[in-house]
Amino acid sequence: MKVQSFTPPQRILMGAGPSDIHPRVLAALSRPTIGHLDPEFIRLMDEVKEMLQASFFTENALTLPISAPGSAGMEAAFANLLEPGDKVVVCVNGVFGQRMAANAVRMGCEVALVEEEWGKAVDPQKVADTLARHQDAKVLAFVHAETSTGAASDAQTLCRLAGEHGCLSLVDAVTSWCSMPVLADDWQADVVYSGTQKCLSCVSGLSPITFSERARQAILERRHPIQSWFLDMQLVMGYWQEGEQRVYHHTAPINALFALHEALVMLLEEGLEQSWARHWAMHERLRDGLESLGLELMVEPAARLPMLNVVKIPEGVDDARVRSLMLEGFGLEISAGLGPMKGKIWRIGLMGNGCRPDHVDRCLEALSASLSKARR
Amino acid sequence: MKVQSFTPPQRILMGAGPSDIHPRVLAALSRPTIGHLDPEFIRLMDEVKEMLQASFFTENALTLPISAPGSAGMEAAFANLLEPGDKVVVCVNGVFGQRMAANAVRMGCEVALVEEEWGKAVDPQKVADTLARHQDAKVLAFVHAETSTGAASDAQTLCRLAGEHGCLSLVDAVTSWCSMPVLADDWQADVVYSGTQKCLSCVSGLSPITFSERARQAILERRHPIQSWFLDMQLVMGYWQEGEQRVYHHTAPINALFALHEALVMLLEEGLEQSWARHWAMHERLRDGLESLGLELMVEPAARLPMLNVVKIPEGVDDARVRSLMLEGFGLEISAGLGPMKGKIWRIGLMGNGCRPDHVDRCLEALSASLSKARR
Repeated sequence: MKVQSFTPPQRILMGAGPSDIHPRVLAALSRPTIGHLDPEFIRLMDEVKEMLQASFFTENALTLPISAPGSAGMEAAFANLLEPGDKVVVCVNGVFGQRMAANAVRMGCEVALVEEEWGKAVDPQKVADTLARHQDAKVLAFVHAETSTGAASDAQTLCRLAGEHGCLSLVDAVTSWCSMPVLADDWQADVVYSGTQKCLSCVSGLSPITFSERARQAILERRHPIQSWFLDMQLVMGYWQEGEQRVYHHTAPINALFALHEALVMLLEEGLEQSWARHWAMHERLRDGLESLGLELMVEPAARLPMLNVVKIPEGVDDARVRSLMLEGFGLEISAGLGPMKGKIWRIGLMGNGCRPDHVDRCLEALSASLSKARR
Repeated sequence: MKVQSFTPPQRILMGAGPSDIHPRVLAALSRPTIGHLDPEFIRLMDEVKEMLQASFFTENALTLPISAPGSAGMEAAFANLLEPGDKVVVCVNGVFGQRMAANAVRMGCEVALVEEEWGKAVDPQKVADTLARHQDAKVLAFVHAETSTGAASDAQTLCRLAGEHGCLSLVDAVTSWCSMPVLADDWQADVVYSGTQKCLSCVSGLSPITFSERARQAILERRHPIQSWFLDMQLVMGYWQEGEQRVYHHTAPINALFALHEALVMLLEEGLEQSWARHWAMHERLRDGLESLGLELMVEPAARLPMLNVVKIPEGVDDARVRSLMLEGFGLEISAGLGPMKGKIWRIGLMGNGCRPDHVDRCLEALSASLSKARR
């Protein structure tokens, strides 16, 4: 068997993630590995933690990157907070809300759904009503920025409702983090997790997560150990706890953490507020261009996400053909719809390092040309 | 808050993993990211799968890298094969056997232990006796190369015993893979998993795993879905299944898979047999040097591992002081003992790209100088 080294093609990534990684982050990624208990690595871990806290606007002590993708971050949030038999209210307005519900069901929880039409924000009134009907719910879970539909929900209001009903709030910020305000302490959110490959423009494979003191207490007071040894925060915190003797749990993904460190340094150099503003400005540029092409955005203006723009595929246009023309002719990737949205929408990402005017313009050019070609 | 970019110190990694990564693999790691559903990425996945099959000496269709470290690979093996109430026989002769038992207990399985003194191989006779006493056991689980003690067990014999008793065999090959024979088909092993940061010398954070057809059937015939959504092979195989339409499950760790591809290309360029021979030759060189320094290996010759050499710490010598002198004076990392072995042993790794004569000699020099200094 003879396999050649792999040289990836040059792409511009404007799908739903991963996004284009800055050369500084790629350079950090490829520095020679050091040990996961090396004193210098421990220093890096402390800095990563401090920068994650800044990025989530929190002072939560239990803030760290899970050594696996965002889906594992979601699972860590559910698995650590909930025990079999617990009741959880899950808001579902897209694929990732469904995934939350699936996680809770697998863990043996009782699940009450708050369902919303795909492409719309979660309705706070429905949430309030559902929480009122389920006084014994332990957790309210929702997705801040639904990656499958491009709709934002009002995280601050939903967290407040959770607090008023004595629930812990569990927030998926995979797509929103770094491109719009994710204010864990301000919102009094109890768990917020994200992924590194979207608006931070770091490598895929890590899931930053933060737990409030209330959430940390809930974990420490569990009646049963969590089923997952790998995601058990009672064990993981022994390795990530600041200032104390580090206890080996698993071998950290060292090079990915080099990259995370550098991506966070770059994020703080730009500033969170500046990053949010940049994402919003590029969204407006793209939106105007799409409208000039006669394309329609699916989400109503009030619930639109800046970093994920969802376009209705015009009648009679072949979804896969257009995406493939864009990829082959322009090296530019946009994403298809997921689940029931497949064939109905395209998802155009403006994420992190990829959220730039030249990318917006290139995307509009590629989309316009490919649409003409596909219509012929 | 002002954090500087992180520049790791230069190290020679001769602990229990991670090992030193070859510049070719680091270069592959840092190539620009492409999408996880890009046709070129799908091609890379197919090649990775094919090379993993070659490395495990198997034709198992269900062979892929889990997107998380070896501990998650262990969890994936247990979680997919076992259901609550199932009985599993677990061999424990070190930390990783204990971790296996912990996984099984957390999953609600009934666990029968075969315990062995730490530093010794698992005794096949004890295993046969235990399997005879537990005719209803579904799985026999053991660690091929115990990373905590440096002892090899006879994987072929243990897999045969499992087969004779109608059990599925579950093999931890985290440390043995690539440095000694791991022959999944020959052994008729049902699940074998490893980690990428040891004798393959790739980045930490991935866990290659292979399931026999019998194991795959057991997964498809489960009575209950596994609790972990992230590790559910019924879902993961939808993304990794060759030749078919790929179904998005989670965002793959793309750059880490670039690195895995290149590390596997290099492994096959050298050849598995040549790699095993190199590890054995370097082990002999190190062993001779250690004996010249008056140091004693803990494991008896018949059960010694080539890639992980376990040395008894001489009476009166300060464990941490010596390791710290080696790290600071020579930039050379060796590992401490884990759990009950802490303070009693050092673990010296000869793994993958780091398994070289110059490293052996440098290690002996560093150890000799640091021991003298610590004794003064």
